[in-house]
Amino acid sequence: MNNEFYHSSFKLAVVGGGQLGRMLIQEALNYNISIHVLDPDENAPCKEICTSFITGSLTDENTVFSFGKDKQLVTIEIEHVSAEALKKLEASGIPVYPQPHLLEMIQDKGAQKQFYRENGIPTADFYLVNSKNEIADYKDQFPFFQKLRKGGYDGRGVQLLNSPDDLSAAFDSPSLLEKPVDFIKEISVIVARNTKGETTYFPVVECEFNPIANLVEFLFAPADVSKEIEKNAIEIAVKVAEKMKIVGLLAVEMFVTKDGKVLVNEVAPRPHNSGHHTIEANITSQYEQHLRAILGLPLGSTEMIRPAVMVNLLGEEGYSGEAVYDGLEEVMKIKGAFVHLYGKKKTKPFRKMGHVTLLADTLEEAKANAILVKNKLKVVSKITQNI
Amino acid sequence: MNNEFYHSSFKLAVVGGGQLGRMLIQEALNYNISIHVLDPDENAPCKEICTSFITGSLTDENTVFSFGKDKQLVTIEIEHVSAEALKKLEASGIPVYPQPHLLEMIQDKGAQKQFYRENGIPTADFYLVNSKNEIADYKDQFPFFQKLRKGGYDGRGVQLLNSPDDLSAAFDSPSLLEKPVDFIKEISVIVARNTKGETTYFPVVECEFNPIANLVEFLFAPADVSKEIEKNAIEIAVKVAEKMKIVGLLAVEMFVTKDGKVLVNEVAPRPHNSGHHTIEANITSQYEQHLRAILGLPLGSTEMIRPAVMVNLLGEEGYSGEAVYDGLEEVMKIKGAFVHLYGKKKTKPFRKMGHVTLLADTLEEAKANAILVKNKLKVVSKITQNI
Repeated sequence: MNNEFYHSSFKLAVVGGGQLGRMLIQEALNYNISIHVLDPDENAPCKEICTSFITGSLTDENTVFSFGKDKQLVTIEIEHVSAEALKKLEASGIPVYPQPHLLEMIQDKGAQKQFYRENGIPTADFYLVNSKNEIADYKDQFPFFQKLRKGGYDGRGVQLLNSPDDLSAAFDSPSLLEKPVDFIKEISVIVARNTKGETTYFPVVECEFNPIANLVEFLFAPADVSKEIEKNAIEIAVKVAEKMKIVGLLAVEMFVTKDGKVLVNEVAPRPHNSGHHTIEANITSQYEQHLRAILGLPLGSTEMIRPAVMVNLLGEEGYSGEAVYDGLEEVMKIKGAFVHLYGKKKTKPFRKMGHVTLLADTLEEAKANAILVKNKLKVVSKITQNI
Repeated sequence: MNNEFYHSSFKLAVVGGGQLGRMLIQEALNYNISIHVLDPDENAPCKEICTSFITGSLTDENTVFSFGKDKQLVTIEIEHVSAEALKKLEASGIPVYPQPHLLEMIQDKGAQKQFYRENGIPTADFYLVNSKNEIADYKDQFPFFQKLRKGGYDGRGVQLLNSPDDLSAAFDSPSLLEKPVDFIKEISVIVARNTKGETTYFPVVECEFNPIANLVEFLFAPADVSKEIEKNAIEIAVKVAEKMKIVGLLAVEMFVTKDGKVLVNEVAPRPHNSGHHTIEANITSQYEQHLRAILGLPLGSTEMIRPAVMVNLLGEEGYSGEAVYDGLEEVMKIKGAFVHLYGKKKTKPFRKMGHVTLLADTLEEAKANAILVKNKLKVVSKITQNI
């Protein structure tokens, strides 16, 4: 199917039209790949640059199936989509990558953890419960993070249960009880595996989260970890991808513990926030690598060109409405600052509006410039609103 | 006008919708810039990725004026457009960059050469004639290149007159008689000048032309020239841009003669084939720099990241029709090969269908890979036609 992917008769369906899809399209343009997008938001970041755009629910089985059924290949840019629809598309003979059964497993945080356990992948200890009542069975083992098995996203559906006293506030739904990890760093490795089973991985990166929004705020590439931890992290990430036999990208987020262990936190089977910097910092970007993987093409070199720091541009607190990028010109003066705005018309607190990647000769220089960006560039709105 | 260029209410008009416009849009996406395009070809490379597209003649005054009159800023991606329309747009208060009077001067090869002479810019000796008859006045000074003052393009409208015997075949139109230059290299420097008069230049590159098609086939960055020639070339290029007071890019193509002189051949007031490699090889690409210049933003660093060779993908002789990129997968295996297909459905002999940039640690390695690309990747068509 793939050797003439550059003809307009070859239609690649992307379920989801956010910034990850947009950056995927930006790379796809270099290969003439026609990308067709489904998203519920009629102003989604992909809207104006994809070959065709359909407004519709990502979780509605019929909508997703209808969208995909006349395409030659289907992929996703967000996990929260109808796995049932993707299974039906796959059953009808259309290649769907990542494979729907993997997506379904990853959508269920409980099944995902069981997969790690069954495959000898190091991860934090956990229990699965079906309701609030069952949590009491583990009352001698608090504290726990309680995570809803399904539907959580960017920190939603997650809470800390410190002691049995917190039981009244617990979610009364199937959930995962996970022992908190005493970690010193959060790192990520993005693995790509193509239809031929070939794999590559991007160098280990380090993520710093915004503590309020639970979103990646800074990313450092390469990560400041020992050779041993680096090797360990890569081995674990590649092992997860190979055990899953996934086709496409798999972003493996991991904790480095105080005692030097590497534990898998969670995975995302798609381009990931921890790979934005690869657009400029690596020979092949994660977006191009995803396309190569799902099209059965040779995977590209993931070698780093220069050290990089990525800063997410999150909507400032207190501002909601038409976005204004205050300080943008100042940032454009910084050597090696690569600005990416996501084409979102409206900002709101902590909304991911764009990112800036800083390349420099050393990571220290890139970090210093990232702090400049963080201080100078603010995503605000024309009319201040207290919200 | 420019501080909120990322709002959709800010409309940038690009006259011409070819590959240069396409690559300009690819960079503009990172800044949310809405680009509106006019091109006579309803399948032009910009069509699917611009904010709006109008099919129409670039040389028809009314068409170009109507297209531009509701935009906030107008630029071009090809010189062969109605300068009259652009002058009217400018007179109506819309900024047009490059400035229409410069475009008009550059469109006229005679006026362009006189500009060099008047400003002390080294260039090959020349005479201007209005008709075939007047050429005889210079019969003791053959050989000449006869170039039509207006309308020539990519080698069309140019011929060598070796001796008075060739007079019968001479063009009977206003033209430039230019003394052939005994050159050893063709080099190019792209200068950017913004609305504030700030300038930057990209490092000197070396162009190798396809002798049949008179199109750039290979480009080497940096150029293999002495420090003195490099310095001289940069000084000349910057001087041309500053004397013109151009806003936007100016690609200055120059000859290096056997005796080490640098002579200006011609200029292009727009992104140029000799700057394609800057997308990956330099911190700021020529396309982004053009946007920065015309929007009055700070110009970016033009520092090279790695040595690069650019190979133009020209349609193979003997093939015409729906394009097939034979050998593309082989090229995608080469480390540091960046493929750019221009979204043109149909190939024909020597049509510019795309380019590949090769980055490597050394220029020699990049050259070796460029030769691999040249040998492996052929733009053919499904049905062979003898034409």
